Amino acid sequence: MLQQHLAKRVEALKPSAIRELLKHSKMPGVISLGGGIPSPELFDRTGLEMATDKVMKGHFLDAFQYGLSEGFPPLREAISELCRGRGITAGIDNILVTSGSQQSLDLLVRTLVNPGDKVVVERPTYLAALQVLQLSQADIRSVGTDKDGMIVDELEILLQSQSVKMVYIVPTFGNPGGVVLSDARRRKLVELAKQYNFVIIEDDPYGEINFTDQTFKTLYQHAAEAGADGHVIYTSTFSKILAPGLRVGWVVLPDWIRQKAAIVKQATDLHTSAQSQAMAASYLSLNRLADQIGMIREAYRDKCHFLAEQMNRELGEHITFHMPQGGMFLWATFRYDFDTTAWLSRTLEEGVVYVPGEFFYSDNADKRTLRLSYATPTRSELEQAVARLKKALP
Amino acid sequence: MLQQHLAKRVEALKPSAIRELLKHSKMPGVISLGGGIPSPELFDRTGLEMATDKVMKGHFLDAFQYGLSEGFPPLREAISELCRGRGITAGIDNILVTSGSQQSLDLLVRTLVNPGDKVVVERPTYLAALQVLQLSQADIRSVGTDKDGMIVDELEILLQSQSVKMVYIVPTFGNPGGVVLSDARRRKLVELAKQYNFVIIEDDPYGEINFTDQTFKTLYQHAAEAGADGHVIYTSTFSKILAPGLRVGWVVLPDWIRQKAAIVKQATDLHTSAQSQAMAASYLSLNRLADQIGMIREAYRDKCHFLAEQMNRELGEHITFHMPQGGMFLWATFRYDFDTTAWLSRTLEEGVVYVPGEFFYSDNADKRTLRLSYATPTRSELEQAVARLKKALP
Repeated sequence: MLQQHLAKRVEALKPSAIRELLKHSKMPGVISLGGGIPSPELFDRTGLEMATDKVMKGHFLDAFQYGLSEGFPPLREAISELCRGRGITAGIDNILVTSGSQQSLDLLVRTLVNPGDKVVVERPTYLAALQVLQLSQADIRSVGTDKDGMIVDELEILLQSQSVKMVYIVPTFGNPGGVVLSDARRRKLVELAKQYNFVIIEDDPYGEINFTDQTFKTLYQHAAEAGADGHVIYTSTFSKILAPGLRVGWVVLPDWIRQKAAIVKQATDLHTSAQSQAMAASYLSLNRLADQIGMIREAYRDKCHFLAEQMNRELGEHITFHMPQGGMFLWATFRYDFDTTAWLSRTLEEGVVYVPGEFFYSDNADKRTLRLSYATPTRSELEQAVARLKKALP
Repeated sequence: MLQQHLAKRVEALKPSAIRELLKHSKMPGVISLGGGIPSPELFDRTGLEMATDKVMKGHFLDAFQYGLSEGFPPLREAISELCRGRGITAGIDNILVTSGSQQSLDLLVRTLVNPGDKVVVERPTYLAALQVLQLSQADIRSVGTDKDGMIVDELEILLQSQSVKMVYIVPTFGNPGGVVLSDARRRKLVELAKQYNFVIIEDDPYGEINFTDQTFKTLYQHAAEAGADGHVIYTSTFSKILAPGLRVGWVVLPDWIRQKAAIVKQATDLHTSAQSQAMAASYLSLNRLADQIGMIREAYRDKCHFLAEQMNRELGEHITFHMPQGGMFLWATFRYDFDTTAWLSRTLEEGVVYVPGEFFYSDNADKRTLRLSYATPTRSELEQAVARLKKALP
């Protein structure tokens, strides 16, 4: 009887498949290629201890008293500096600290999307973004991707017949695809935003986990250069480069949205944990982040290449993939008709889990796909995982 | 042009008056009776240092790695125990950790309220609750209060003609009113919830800050006794008794809502800062909270009585109030027609700020009212503050 009180928007929400997987992945003996969980051995324990010390000695009240909804000013200052290194010019007034990328996305969607508004995502896309968009009752449309990221020409065709409010994209080392949106497509996407007057949410949690020597210009920067300022909202996080448990991320907000977004943030949770923010700020002041990122980059590159090698050797006749240039995921596709969701119970028996590809699609799911995360397992676990996948083949 | 993309739900949102006040209250020389900010001298610095030490030595990964959306299990265990002391029986499966009361409320409203659903609040009520309800596009109705809290008979009359989804109430040492809902009214409210099938959100941030020897039975407990289980959702926080900067609160969720609420929490921010949760859990394990609450209670009682004394002596012919039995606020009313919002610029010139009462009303604001917080100022500042208020009288 009381269930009838649940809001319409939550009726369709299902417990995420990832949650179920995480349960399995904690079963003894199971090797998980499932969640996008940073490797705990790569946490900078010394740095985090130094930061804790700094907070307790020098920022006690900053950490434990109420703070500003926009975030702890010294942290926003440090984020502004960090953004500069990524080619993004933004003063602290345009930076809002959030409780991680997930909240950035939820906050932006709540500030922008009315029920029924058309929002375009990549096919496949980050599955928790789909959950936020479902919660907002957006009309979700998807555009295909290839080895150069979102097929922007396909988006253009869509735009010719549909009024789109927002495009959500992970342009650099996307989740789950692992691909990078080409520079030509970045330029074009930003031009389209200007022409068709939509907003781009540029979600960049993985940009620093770059296995190449190339740098990839952000959509934010492209927009600034193309006179499309204000059309791109950039968001990033400390989850993958420092520690996800802190739940600290940020949004770079154009002037037209920053006040309203700050009010929504305030209504949501007043502000992000002051202790977590003080920790992030103190950590950044130690100047250890660059080395930390360098180490993560090396470790993940090594694991990625090792997993790719194993996959090619053991499963190459069955499964194909694009070699990731960065990030945490290898996105693979069976060469023939296959259902990776059904297969999961079989691989679990062998002691290995992954995320079936279909969860990353809002529509037209390709059931031959699967996402393999190489961040957490060791080399020897990756080797065993591939052997187990092979053994689980029908 | 881009502003047209803002969602309808945010159009009406205004920067909160409290935010503006907080800016003023930080001006040198200004004494703030504004925000509901715990006194920083009462923070248990030693305990928080001990907890930090425990976290860094014994719970490093719990604090810095991803965790469960429902919250850190040892913290939920400790909260379950804490609830038992408040007469609330709930296992850890029914406890969801949130990023403070504000998020609890936002989460519950998102899980329950469709645009246009009728939600009843007290008149006056917590002003940030109004913001959350506005964001959800609820149809907000209000019911008057007197010295015994919400006038439940008035609610009954409303229920006879209107279908109400939810009642939001701070029954114990309410904000801003400072009053306690009488036991008879508690019983009646819960009976009405059963009879008219609505949900009660029992917001209890201040219950432990009790200046009396009485205990007040929660609505949650009344509901259990009246066979109205499931109609009351209880929420509380560590903000007022430990440290607001941690942003850790919780909700006790009946079975019918707990799964959906956890999914909404996940979509919102994955989970509350793991570091903050580990801190709260470690602090609770030190068994210092009871003494800490005892100290806060004494200090606030003393300040409350001192402020009341000063108010009666200096402003008694102009202003009247009910003596608070607990909490952080003295809610006062001019004895004659008066506009406390307009008066604020005058008192600010004299160097004292408060929150004008009208911000706590969804409708029918009584402009003669004002909220005075006694938690942060010292005795001598409270004395000066009242003298300044007197000087600012027309």
